[in-house]
Amino acid sequence: MREKEFIWDMHSFEELSREFTGRFDTRHFPSDPSSLYEPAGYFLSIGGKRVRPILCLMGNELFGEISPDAWPAAIAVELFHNFTLIHDDIMDKAPIRRGMPTVHEKYGSPTALLAGDVMLVVAYDYLNRIGGGPIHEILQLFNRTARQVCEGQQIDMDFEKKFSVDLNEYLHMIELKTSVLLAASLQMGAILGGAGKGNQQHIFEFGRNLGLAFQIQDDYLDAFGDPAKFGKQLGGDIVANKKTFLLVKAMEVANSAQYEDIRLLLETDIPDKVQQMLHLFRVCGVDAWARALKENYIKTAFRHLEEIAVISSRKEPLRKLAEFLVQREY
Amino acid sequence: MREKEFIWDMHSFEELSREFTGRFDTRHFPSDPSSLYEPAGYFLSIGGKRVRPILCLMGNELFGEISPDAWPAAIAVELFHNFTLIHDDIMDKAPIRRGMPTVHEKYGSPTALLAGDVMLVVAYDYLNRIGGGPIHEILQLFNRTARQVCEGQQIDMDFEKKFSVDLNEYLHMIELKTSVLLAASLQMGAILGGAGKGNQQHIFEFGRNLGLAFQIQDDYLDAFGDPAKFGKQLGGDIVANKKTFLLVKAMEVANSAQYEDIRLLLETDIPDKVQQMLHLFRVCGVDAWARALKENYIKTAFRHLEEIAVISSRKEPLRKLAEFLVQREY
Repeated sequence: MREKEFIWDMHSFEELSREFTGRFDTRHFPSDPSSLYEPAGYFLSIGGKRVRPILCLMGNELFGEISPDAWPAAIAVELFHNFTLIHDDIMDKAPIRRGMPTVHEKYGSPTALLAGDVMLVVAYDYLNRIGGGPIHEILQLFNRTARQVCEGQQIDMDFEKKFSVDLNEYLHMIELKTSVLLAASLQMGAILGGAGKGNQQHIFEFGRNLGLAFQIQDDYLDAFGDPAKFGKQLGGDIVANKKTFLLVKAMEVANSAQYEDIRLLLETDIPDKVQQMLHLFRVCGVDAWARALKENYIKTAFRHLEEIAVISSRKEPLRKLAEFLVQREY
Repeated sequence: MREKEFIWDMHSFEELSREFTGRFDTRHFPSDPSSLYEPAGYFLSIGGKRVRPILCLMGNELFGEISPDAWPAAIAVELFHNFTLIHDDIMDKAPIRRGMPTVHEKYGSPTALLAGDVMLVVAYDYLNRIGGGPIHEILQLFNRTARQVCEGQQIDMDFEKKFSVDLNEYLHMIELKTSVLLAASLQMGAILGGAGKGNQQHIFEFGRNLGLAFQIQDDYLDAFGDPAKFGKQLGGDIVANKKTFLLVKAMEVANSAQYEDIRLLLETDIPDKVQQMLHLFRVCGVDAWARALKENYIKTAFRHLEEIAVISSRKEPLRKLAEFLVQREY
């Protein structure tokens, strides 16, 4: 373990983002056959916030200077995330991602499926660059997380066929589909930084709770956000009858008349469906509930961050990033 | 290296098959969510010849007693192979595999896609049980092979859109799609048996050439096999206009009149299409050519087997398996 006490220049999100992008925007695949690798490269080229690899790097730097092994780990995490997006888009028949045509839309589903597969394999290739002892620990965490992300996607698809979903089931799904990868990215960095088990667990819990807060916020903003600041059509989830924190909770707390109103609304496509549903959400108090629940997860996340046994000033970049992620204006 | 000279009881294919099946027919996945893991388990339950894991075990036993690490490696190889079959079946829209409904046919494409993904992840979980030094070498070989298998599948799909295919391109595709996994299975076993680089290369080449011979035989039997012994409808590839060794070679050696006959035949669905195409194959001499080409690959395979620096009697199980695989009656 090298949980050092002295301080040197920690890197901000912006600095790490610049450095990571420089290393990531390179050729990860052979050129031939281009019919396979060009679609994979295309998807990486349409960008993304690269939050997960930065979390990996920050989780690493928390315990010392960034170790050389943290870079391939960060790249693996970002490739894995993109693999899941390519496959999710096939499953969800999504035509657009980040404002651009999805891989299956542009190259057909069979090629998109294979491009995703090969991206996952290349992610493991990067993990294999990690030298020495922690490779087994890293692989174990990565594999468990990968399985959980698949489980989350399957449970999410199962929800689509159900009329009502239990809030705890929903939380579990979000945890698997979104939170564990954020948490594992941080923990992978921590492992490679030589963190002990206790610190690893706290940083994992920090990420897991942050992920839950982030997802609640995402659902909240889709319904109650400021359209000018949110940057997309409000109520998209409502139009699509998507199970969100808000809908799941509303159906749980509604009285029988409200429940009936929600049920009828889910079966229609009337022009003011969004307005009516938002009204019902407010009447059921789920807007305030969501804000409180989010705050609760944020608090828990920060409590775990505080528990990590390194001096407080080293936590500043993670603190700032967390605040940025979950304090978007509404 | 432990390329020992003394002999003990080597295991036959049947013995290894029994032992492997006993270890493989167990639960590889959690039970929950069953909507994801039951489809994955279903596909494994419909069986298969388990040739690749047996090759891994034989490649291992060639160099000494079977090492504990060979078992998880063999399981990983078989899981990987099944992952490719599940995804290939989605891409090829195949309704039946081994006489049973394919995963996407039974559970829908999104679930089949995820079940394949999670099976690949679990394959890596088994690889992670390999202790000590060779994990990096094994992962590197496994990842390279996995990439090549994806490449082979993509090139095969590209061929479907082409009218004619060059024989060397076709050979390259088969090598990627089929041969390298057989070869890598053997080499993984050899690595875990402590084989040196030279022996590793020979066992890889043995598997690669054997795989090519096997695929030629497969194409040959589909056209010229004895229906009673072959166990499926003859000429299935011809009906489906599939590019096979025979068609690719026929189009290469045909004179202009024969080429025109083939071209016209490919565009029709007349009742005696199979008979007419077989006649053209014979006229072009591709039946004898295929038999000679297969013999050539078998010879090369066996030459590499002989080159492996262990006493000849240790090679008996591999020799027998190879003869069984490529000497099916026609």
